[in-house]
Formats: sequence, C-alpha cells, structure tokens
Amino acid sequence: MTTPKLPNAVRIVEMGPRDGLQNEKQLVPTETKVELVRRLERAGLKAIETTSFVSPKWVPQMGDNAEVLARVLAQPAAGVAYPVLTPNLKGFEAALAAGAKEVAVFGAASESFSQKNINCSIAESLARFRPVTEAAHAAGVRVRGYVSCVVGCPYEGAVAPQAVAEVAATLRDMGCYEISLGDTIGVGNPASIQRMLEAVAMRVPVELLAGHYHDTYGMAVANVHASLQMGVAVFDASVGGLGGCPYAAGASGNVATEDVVWLLHGLGIDTGIELDALVDTAAWISAQLGREPASRVARAVLAKRAQRAPAGP
Amino acid sequence: MTTPKLPNAVRIVEMGPRDGLQNEKQLVPTETKVELVRRLERAGLKAIETTSFVSPKWVPQMGDNAEVLARVLAQPAAGVAYPVLTPNLKGFEAALAAGAKEVAVFGAASESFSQKNINCSIAESLARFRPVTEAAHAAGVRVRGYVSCVVGCPYEGAVAPQAVAEVAATLRDMGCYEISLGDTIGVGNPASIQRMLEAVAMRVPVELLAGHYHDTYGMAVANVHASLQMGVAVFDASVGGLGGCPYAAGASGNVATEDVVWLLHGLGIDTGIELDALVDTAAWISAQLGREPASRVARAVLAKRAQRAPAGP
Repeated sequence: MTTPKLPNAVRIVEMGPRDGLQNEKQLVPTETKVELVRRLERAGLKAIETTSFVSPKWVPQMGDNAEVLARVLAQPAAGVAYPVLTPNLKGFEAALAAGAKEVAVFGAASESFSQKNINCSIAESLARFRPVTEAAHAAGVRVRGYVSCVVGCPYEGAVAPQAVAEVAATLRDMGCYEISLGDTIGVGNPASIQRMLEAVAMRVPVELLAGHYHDTYGMAVANVHASLQMGVAVFDASVGGLGGCPYAAGASGNVATEDVVWLLHGLGIDTGIELDALVDTAAWISAQLGREPASRVARAVLAKRAQRAPAGP
Repeated sequence: MTTPKLPNAVRIVEMGPRDGLQNEKQLVPTETKVELVRRLERAGLKAIETTSFVSPKWVPQMGDNAEVLARVLAQPAAGVAYPVLTPNLKGFEAALAAGAKEVAVFGAASESFSQKNINCSIAESLARFRPVTEAAHAAGVRVRGYVSCVVGCPYEGAVAPQAVAEVAATLRDMGCYEISLGDTIGVGNPASIQRMLEAVAMRVPVELLAGHYHDTYGMAVANVHASLQMGVAVFDASVGGLGGCPYAAGASGNVATEDVVWLLHGLGIDTGIELDALVDTAAWISAQLGREPASRVARAVLAKRAQRAPAGP
C-alpha cells in the first residue's frame, strides 16, 4: 500500500476548561478553572478554549465565565489563544467586555439536533451567528466555527456528508478562520470520518479544518489518524478526557489530549506539547474532580511512574 | 489520498479466557471459565483460546487447565476452535491428553524479554518449541505461533522489525498455520505497526498474520485499522478488555473484543459476531470479577441501554 504523507506538525485546541468541565455536575471553583488553564499553558498548549458565554440558566457551570476569562487574560501566556464559546450576540458582547480576542460559534449538521439542542433550524442558527461574526470581525476578534453531529445524530442516525459540507461552507463564508468538525456522539469510524472529510474538503480547504472527536466508542484515536491521512492538522481534545457524553451517562466524551499527543509524537509529528506535564495536569484536574483520569495514556504513564517510585521502608 | 482496500471479513481470536484471566489475582472458578467460553460461542466467536498448559507454579490461575479444556470440549460448538497455550512438550502432552485439537507456542522478538520472561534466548526458546510443533503435527493438532514484543520491549525499548520477521519466519517454518504478532506492552502506533508488518510480510504471507495489540496507551483500535490497511484480516482481542498489563499495574491490557468488533462493523467488515451478545458477555464476566467492563464500547452501550430502560415508579 502507499502510506499517505502525514502533516509534520499538528495544532491541538484544548477543550478541557470548556467542553470538558461544562458536563460536570459539581460546580468547579473559579480558582480551579483558572489554575487548569495555567497548567495547560505550561504543558505547551497554544490554544485553550477557556469558557462559554451561555446563559447560566442553561449551563450553571459556566456562570463565572466573565471572571474566568478576565483572570486568564490578566496574565496571558505568550502566543496562546483563549477562545470562548459565544452562542449569540448577547454572549459575544459579554465575552468582548471580558476581553475576548477569539470566539467560537457552532451549527449542527442535523436538523433534529439543532431543534432539540438550540430550539431552531440549522438555517436559523446560522442566521443568528451572522451578527456575531460581523460584530466580532468589526472588533478585530477571530471567530472559529464548530459543526456538530458530523457523522451521526442521536435523533436522526447517520448524517449526510453533504449536510456537513454545507454548514461548514456557510461558517467559512461568514469568515470563520477554522471549522472544527465535531463527532458529538462519538459514532464515527475511520471510514465515515474520511467520507465526511472528503465531502467537506470539496467546499472548504482542508488546511482550515479541525477534527473534534469524542471517544464514546473508543474510535477517536483511530479517527484522528484517519484524518491525518486526509491532511487534517488541527485537533480538539480535552485533558484527562474531561467531559462525558451528555447522551449516555458513564460513557466517554472528548478524546483525551494526552492520548492524541501520544499518537502524534509516536508518529513523529510535532505538537509543542510536553507529554509528562500534560499527564500531570490530567492527574491534577481529575483529583480536583475526585476521580482517576479517564485516559489510557494518563493511567499507563502514572502506573509506570508509581512502579518506578522507590517503595517505602 | 487513495484509501487502501480493506478486507471484507475478519476473524477474531478471543483471548479472554486465557490471556485475559491469567492476569487476574483472584482465582476464577472453573465453572465461570467454562461459562465464559459458552457465552463467547453464543456471541459468535469462532476461535477461543481456552486456557494455558503452563506450570501451576508459575500461573496458578491456569491450574485447572485440563478440567476447563475437557469440559469445554465435551460439548464443542460447531465450527469453533479452542486453542490452548503450550509453552513446552510437557504442556503439549497434557493439552493433548485433555483433548486439544489446536495449540499455540510463542517466541519473543526481544532477547532481554525472552531471558527475563522464559529464562532462555530467543533461539533456545524456538528450539524448545520444535519438538512441540513436531509432536503436534504428528498428532494432527494445529499450531498457532505468537511473537511477543513486536514493536517494543520493556527492557530494550524499540524492537527492530527485522527481528520480528526472523522469529515469525522461524515459527512459520516450523509449520505454524498463523503467526500472531503481539504488541505486548502496547507501545505501538499506526506507523510503527505498519513498519513492523511491512518487514514481516516480506518473510511470511500477510494472509498468515494476525495482529495482537494491547491497549495500554489507547492505540490498539488505531493499530487494528492501520493493520487492516496492510491486509491483515485476523485479530486477537479480549472480551471486556480482560487482562491488565503485567508491566504497569492499573494500565489496560488486550484490546477489548467489542471495541474491535465495533470498528470492524463500522467499516462494513463482517465478523460473524453479534455485538449485543458480546457486550452482555463483557458485562457478565466483569461482574463476576467485581468490576465494570474496561472497554469504551461496553460502557457506552450499557449506559445507553440503562437510559432507555423505563424508570421505576
């Protein structure tokens, strides 16, 4: 076989503080959220989605969004981006007031998901984001776009690659600098992910695409590898595998950052991230939440370290 | 990119009753072991490694090997193979007496691992297997060969693909009908696995190769996919992800059968296995061992079922 040439370097967009923590039932102290961002910076992450400017009525965990962002931006690390999710103009204005330099908007590729998740059609949701992207660009704020349910929807089942391509192209037309393609419920596999990417890449250059894969069925690392084979060089991931799947309690959510970094470094691909510091961060935030890290890499690395540590007297 | 053509059908060799259970500290009742094999048969598994004829001094968990095999073979399912591991002639004779129709032998691709694991050189270990394969063939018993440490060794680090090819070719020359390539400590990634397979396939036809990957660092599903791209169509796996990694307590062992089956079915590849029955089996054996299934697929499927179940009054 001919092995496709993989990218030399990959950018990781860390989802832990936002997509990860937003699914936590226990309220995480603001101090812990800020400290998580600081530890991720020190591990070498260059893009850290910091919080979400949604209504605290819907996501109480993100109720301290303005304070978290302001504290993070009071001492920004060099060359690090701190995007925040802004589902509407009100959220965008609050994010801007807190100092946001980058925001993210999202559309679903499935009508049923759009209706049930944000109570409007895909077209309506995209129309709602247009004033956000316009206001953002007027304010010199970069906008990242997410498409959710890119291979499957909890209500509709399989999602057509063309539907994903359509939403991705619309977000690109609005000026999103990057489109992150989310397998929200983790049902993708290397074949369905590659079919989806093929369709999207016909409308949006592959250099502008990111993979955002959930590990619900353990396929995320394979899906990252399949995406690398298609030329995708940006991936979203969540330290310690933070963030469960909202549609199946007990199941995994975002792929763990350390699992993706392990894969990439093993493939000889540069990430700028220090794996040991990342594993430390996974262990630390998991301990704050009162559990073990969900990722295999964190568990294996920690088990190996414990084995090497000298036994007590 | 050109997507390599994948096999249409894959054979899974189930490792749970042997490679899985042998790492369990608590002694598993013989009855449970036999029942595990029965449930695996009903889920559609056609090859189930049933036990190991090692000295009970070394592996007390397999001390009931003759009884387990005899009871399983007293009511064999149609078309199912029940290989057993036989590390030496004494073990082979005991396996034959218990009715074995298929046995397995193993060699390491790393000298240090061979010395520390079985206390002899690779060459000595292979010489020790020759009388086993000869006796087996004389008795009409099929022999499967394992190579361990095919990409990395806990003592030596990286293992040269040529060393793996050499051991695989020797096992083939001895008449092993299939050579299973084991990433014993789970350090392989799609690139190192493909480099290893490329070297081995120069010496042994790829149709005779099986992938045996451990999920220690969460790479096993990606490694299965990378191997499918090279034409490998047989994989070893362990229901429920049974079997930890002996070199890192708390880390994962064999890739879970249900994770591999989920991948294969998603890719449109036939396995003859019924996923739901397999997940039931994973849940059942995990409960027998007093824990949750380790596999993402089992956890996600079980969580989804629990969600669907009607709530109590």
